Amino acid sequence: MEPVRLLPGFRDFYPEAFRLRRHFATIWRQVAGLHGFSEYDGPVLEALDLFRKKSGEEIERQLFAFTDKGDRAVALRPEMTPTLARMVAAKAASLRRPVKWFSIGDQFRYERQQKGRLRCFTQFNADLLGEEGPAAEVELISLLAASLRAFGLTEEDFCIRISDRTFWIHFLETRGITGETARGVLGVVDKLERESPEATRQALGAVVGEAAADPLLEAIRRLVAVRDLGELEAIAGNGVDAGALGAARERLALWAELMADLEAIGLGDFVQVDLGVVRGLAYYTGFVFEAFDRKGAFRALAGGGRYDGLVELFGGPSLPAAGFAVGDVVLEELLRERGKLPPLVEAVDVYLVVGENSRRPALEAAAALRAHGYRVEYALKAGGFGKQFKAAAQSGARLALTFGPDEIARGVCKVKDLAARTEEEVPLASVLTAVARHFQA
Amino acid sequence: MEPVRLLPGFRDFYPEAFRLRRHFATIWRQVAGLHGFSEYDGPVLEALDLFRKKSGEEIERQLFAFTDKGDRAVALRPEMTPTLARMVAAKAASLRRPVKWFSIGDQFRYERQQKGRLRCFTQFNADLLGEEGPAAEVELISLLAASLRAFGLTEEDFCIRISDRTFWIHFLETRGITGETARGVLGVVDKLERESPEATRQALGAVVGEAAADPLLEAIRRLVAVRDLGELEAIAGNGVDAGALGAARERLALWAELMADLEAIGLGDFVQVDLGVVRGLAYYTGFVFEAFDRKGAFRALAGGGRYDGLVELFGGPSLPAAGFAVGDVVLEELLRERGKLPPLVEAVDVYLVVGENSRRPALEAAAALRAHGYRVEYALKAGGFGKQFKAAAQSGARLALTFGPDEIARGVCKVKDLAARTEEEVPLASVLTAVARHFQA
Repeated sequence: MEPVRLLPGFRDFYPEAFRLRRHFATIWRQVAGLHGFSEYDGPVLEALDLFRKKSGEEIERQLFAFTDKGDRAVALRPEMTPTLARMVAAKAASLRRPVKWFSIGDQFRYERQQKGRLRCFTQFNADLLGEEGPAAEVELISLLAASLRAFGLTEEDFCIRISDRTFWIHFLETRGITGETARGVLGVVDKLERESPEATRQALGAVVGEAAADPLLEAIRRLVAVRDLGELEAIAGNGVDAGALGAARERLALWAELMADLEAIGLGDFVQVDLGVVRGLAYYTGFVFEAFDRKGAFRALAGGGRYDGLVELFGGPSLPAAGFAVGDVVLEELLRERGKLPPLVEAVDVYLVVGENSRRPALEAAAALRAHGYRVEYALKAGGFGKQFKAAAQSGARLALTFGPDEIARGVCKVKDLAARTEEEVPLASVLTAVARHFQA
Repeated sequence: MEPVRLLPGFRDFYPEAFRLRRHFATIWRQVAGLHGFSEYDGPVLEALDLFRKKSGEEIERQLFAFTDKGDRAVALRPEMTPTLARMVAAKAASLRRPVKWFSIGDQFRYERQQKGRLRCFTQFNADLLGEEGPAAEVELISLLAASLRAFGLTEEDFCIRISDRTFWIHFLETRGITGETARGVLGVVDKLERESPEATRQALGAVVGEAAADPLLEAIRRLVAVRDLGELEAIAGNGVDAGALGAARERLALWAELMADLEAIGLGDFVQVDLGVVRGLAYYTGFVFEAFDRKGAFRALAGGGRYDGLVELFGGPSLPAAGFAVGDVVLEELLRERGKLPPLVEAVDVYLVVGENSRRPALEAAAALRAHGYRVEYALKAGGFGKQFKAAAQSGARLALTFGPDEIARGVCKVKDLAARTEEEVPLASVLTAVARHFQA
């Protein structure tokens, strides 16, 4: 019979691969803890309506959705934010603010298979709710940078590009572009880096009309080339709508606060003004940011931004909010390419070599050693000592303890230090002390 | 608009609940490591055929199964063993033996809602493959007992009842009962504790006929009352089929080895012969065991056994195997009832109180402290100091550092020990040293 296989786009984590998965989770947990974020989780299966509430037609096309045995329309979560918004909305009144939460969990998207994309991947999500000012973004960007630096990545490896959807809206307003048309323009901007100049020009013409397309495209190209706040201010000054102009200038005050704080918290070399980032998901409402490798060889490592309307959309109070997500797939590719994946070996501390009729003292020693925190393996069946010593070496154990019939008859066991290549005999009653001596040394 | 709710039978893990979930995982990982087991995981979504391969019609009725966008019949995993068998089968030739693996993961079953049962729960699974003798069961039962004892449960709280499906098969054979009829009898035995005597008698009559039912029921009742190996031997001696009798006696030699090893490894007080355990799943082939609370107030805490045929069924070589699973739901109920759930508080180390125009030095200190491993929170906006000190107390921080305009003007900050209620001023350049002094003390 044909063996049943793993589904395409999913991963098996054999112990070696699992160690890397664990390494990721350990680092994310540690860094989030340093920033005072608390871990939460929700179910991977939710009511389909939860994911319909949030824009994302793109996401609905990618859902693993079905009807359960109770006739409920359900779906595997494609991202964490709707669950977060549901949970916060349900208990908003009793949560200490700001809410600083993170999660590490699997997300599911039925995507076309391609490099850097899987149908099930792990995301590190962090969100900060209850703070409307850019201090929320500062804390999140600080956590994002720290979570990448903790893997050994430096400012030469990655950069966090910061943009502002609100500024974009006001900028377009100064040119009389609003509503659906503005969203259409942002869709074109989102694809700017990936499309040819001709395709971009054509797409923009379709959105704003042929007459307006060329001057707008020129203005857009100037805007996405901006890398510091002074230039941004100059560009914000050119417009026709005085109200929108004022609003754009107000954003610049927030920008100044954001960039000064990021500088103060030590991230000056890690962040960059870059209005070319607009983020696909429609629910972002202010600053947005993405982390990229400096060489531009990979997809975005992480993305996030402000989504002030979302908790209210899920039945909660109006609560300002911002957050980001890091996926494990691209991060692993980047770390591998940069040689930053650590060797993750797994070893026991002690291996027990067990002779015929020596099982009882060996098992007693195994129980005592484990109770004192030593990782212990032993030969499940009495075989040749040569074979057992080979197994001891493969186990990575530092010590091999031999319980042979000769030793047992004399009330001792042999303690061999496999690293130092020394051997001694110790009374059975002193095995624990002898092992402790080797590990303290 | 009506808010979208959590699906019935699923759980949200708000930070407080998540800490307990993490506590469970931490303990399971630690204990499995002491026993030399390596962690693995597979996807929660698998091809439906994977779960069809294994007996369990009961399980198929409970599957969250659907057709994906690529027209594949898929299902959320209801248990870990089919994925394990698939993974081991695929790489059996290259895996070091014995294979000692564990996993901690969510399982999904569309069950009727009742106490101790959820539609999504977490299981700790451990399996040992490649060893046909009872040494495998000894190592697994040792791990199972250790994983319960690590929560503070003692031999007064729980007991592992051990049974033997092979002995049952031979025992029934000595009475001429084989094949489907034997499986029918085991089905009756499985329900013995939960059904009335009348219902049991009636069910047995339906399987073996009215004439045979009464003497068989008497023999079954004697067998399930057995609590030591001597009695078991006496009962095995009564039969009509000499071949089956010999086979039953061979099992007794394995039983003797199993119980002697469990005694040697220190579990004499934790285990009990109890043929009343037969385990529902049809794929078990030898010893089976379940962990119960001694007072009998809860469902089984854990269950497992030998399933020698399974890896071959999934396209691998013939590989002896045994394993067990512990669920988190009943375990949590028991620990709560026994007062063994630890207080799991989460606190930062340092809280920064930030005054007007003092943001820059505060953010610099936050970055430096976090880089040195301190968990740091700070006021996201400059507010009243009283409010900030309240937030500092709520954060659980040991130290509150005040960066007020007066302090900054003098190049210092105030370090307040919230536990010791002491306060000192330190130069901004010495903040890290001052904090370190408090945490070393």
